Amino acid sequence: MEQQVKDDLTRGTGSKKQSIIDCDVHPSPRNTDEIRAYLAQPWRDRYHGSTRGFFGNPVHGARLDATPPNGGPTGSDPEFLREQLIDKYGHAYAILLPRAFCNLHPDPDFGTAIAAAYNDWLADTWLGAYNRDGVFKGSITVNHQDPQAAAREIERWAGHPHFVQVMTDSGARAPFGQRHYYPIYEACARHGLPFAIHPGTDGMGINIQPSPGYPTHYIEWHTCLSLGFQAHLVSFLTEGVFERFPNFKIVLTEGGVAWLPGLMWRLNAEYKALRYEVPWMKRRPSDYLRDHVRITSQPLERPDDDRELLQMLQMMDAEHILMFASDYPHWDFDSPTHTFPKLPEAMHRRIFFENARELYNL
Amino acid sequence: MEQQVKDDLTRGTGSKKQSIIDCDVHPSPRNTDEIRAYLAQPWRDRYHGSTRGFFGNPVHGARLDATPPNGGPTGSDPEFLREQLIDKYGHAYAILLPRAFCNLHPDPDFGTAIAAAYNDWLADTWLGAYNRDGVFKGSITVNHQDPQAAAREIERWAGHPHFVQVMTDSGARAPFGQRHYYPIYEACARHGLPFAIHPGTDGMGINIQPSPGYPTHYIEWHTCLSLGFQAHLVSFLTEGVFERFPNFKIVLTEGGVAWLPGLMWRLNAEYKALRYEVPWMKRRPSDYLRDHVRITSQPLERPDDDRELLQMLQMMDAEHILMFASDYPHWDFDSPTHTFPKLPEAMHRRIFFENARELYNL
Repeated sequence: MEQQVKDDLTRGTGSKKQSIIDCDVHPSPRNTDEIRAYLAQPWRDRYHGSTRGFFGNPVHGARLDATPPNGGPTGSDPEFLREQLIDKYGHAYAILLPRAFCNLHPDPDFGTAIAAAYNDWLADTWLGAYNRDGVFKGSITVNHQDPQAAAREIERWAGHPHFVQVMTDSGARAPFGQRHYYPIYEACARHGLPFAIHPGTDGMGINIQPSPGYPTHYIEWHTCLSLGFQAHLVSFLTEGVFERFPNFKIVLTEGGVAWLPGLMWRLNAEYKALRYEVPWMKRRPSDYLRDHVRITSQPLERPDDDRELLQMLQMMDAEHILMFASDYPHWDFDSPTHTFPKLPEAMHRRIFFENARELYNL
Repeated sequence: MEQQVKDDLTRGTGSKKQSIIDCDVHPSPRNTDEIRAYLAQPWRDRYHGSTRGFFGNPVHGARLDATPPNGGPTGSDPEFLREQLIDKYGHAYAILLPRAFCNLHPDPDFGTAIAAAYNDWLADTWLGAYNRDGVFKGSITVNHQDPQAAAREIERWAGHPHFVQVMTDSGARAPFGQRHYYPIYEACARHGLPFAIHPGTDGMGINIQPSPGYPTHYIEWHTCLSLGFQAHLVSFLTEGVFERFPNFKIVLTEGGVAWLPGLMWRLNAEYKALRYEVPWMKRRPSDYLRDHVRITSQPLERPDDDRELLQMLQMMDAEHILMFASDYPHWDFDSPTHTFPKLPEAMHRRIFFENARELYNL
């Protein structure tokens, strides 16, 4: 207990060992039954886990060394995750994003039930029994395919001390700025919860590819995930979502980083010529970013020349927009100590800690 | 005649007045009947021009001052185009890309007939009667929806002195690296004709959106056109098209510029981890660009700070990859004299002239 208090006191105060907030960590149930236990019938019988069909990594989807020593899927043992991630790098907080893939199904009620089951499970385990020191902060999974039900799910958890954001998959049937989604954003804004998008169901189940037709290989699909994020961001901006919900913020998780400057230059130019079409946009597109948009760093693009990455980070105002993420335990894990070249001190501090602390009120 | 000879001799020799090859200029028929005249029945009766439905510019799609003094659509009067573009800026060559939008239709035979009619029309007019000084170089329009028929259309024109490339729209039902397209690329490679992609039918007719669902506004659609180009490029690279057809080159026209560095950094990293999946890729993705890929400059992204654009151009090896284009007579025309900040001399020369001269053997 004394150690817990000490942990709480030092957490996030800037000591070397407590200077990281990791914005993309994936906890996993130990098995499908852990989720099934939270599902009522008929969903309990119909649920067979979060399989997604094709576009799986053909080599391995997780770090081979992340399999818990006592067995089970990677990311399913909180003690081993603490050892391999939290304690090793000195994480102050890990923002947890479970992978429910609930929006795959044609039936929105099924998707909504899966989302709720994942939230119950996360609250009872990683945010409950396993969270003795408060290091774990969670995401409320919603099924964006039924926005009214998603808003109710947000209401069910708002005020929980360890749920700090709402999340969904970037796979969708329509860009996220469109009006039918607004009940979700209204609920997020009401409770000060950022809305995070994470890859997962792009082109799978009922969701459309973020490319002109189906890609062939995982490398192609995985590379082009970043295109869906760009389309969603353009949609949020041009539909005026941030004017309609002034308190609403989004987090683009695992969608790439280096595309932001070029996309904003392009959209700013379009805005200059075409703002007549979108009169609700009161500011230049890029002017909304600092107030409303955060991007997580993994998988960070690394050119051969570090100077080019530093230039790109300057162009995108990374000091205010970017938040570190490792994507533990997945195959393309970004180590806190090796992913970035040496950054200016202030930029490093904001990317690894302050931007997330401010966003999530930690 | 003497003046013509003089023009031919000085064209492209580097004098101030002849130092531009403009890689995206749009000639237009004066009216639908000009194309209809080249169509056999039943297509002649069924053809009603190249309307595309929604996603038209809500303000105006062309420069208002580009309407010919004697009437007719913008880009339909070669003398006025010479005055407003060729003579004004001293173009050595204008690469012409007519806008047939032939791949909109469910019926591939209809699309193929429209493509052929546009080629006949272009050969008889802009590349024929109107081309007294050889300034106009043309694109063979193909309907990529029927690759075998497209290959036959390429055969029909290969060897023509003024057709210098094959072109199609970026709107598609599958990414362009996929195998069913290969008869087109084989024909291109056989005749040393680059394959150019130009926006036009994205998300229209039978073609898929390069975004997760339909965008709402023109500004959104037009901004996201660049995403389709990125997906097509990733597809060309990961499917190994450039290994299969070592002589094959592509031109990404009007699809944006500043996305290239970030996309290549991302794909290079994916390749490092996943090349097992695509063993036909013998080189790093970015290593294919100089030999196989050219990008045209319009609409060039312009950040507030010119230095950021210059950094981006360095990152993308613009000196070898980028070719100037104006997109005359469209609304977002890029002036040769105002679009770029001051460039290093060698880079300027290559972007405005040498890269295109080498690609098109001019």
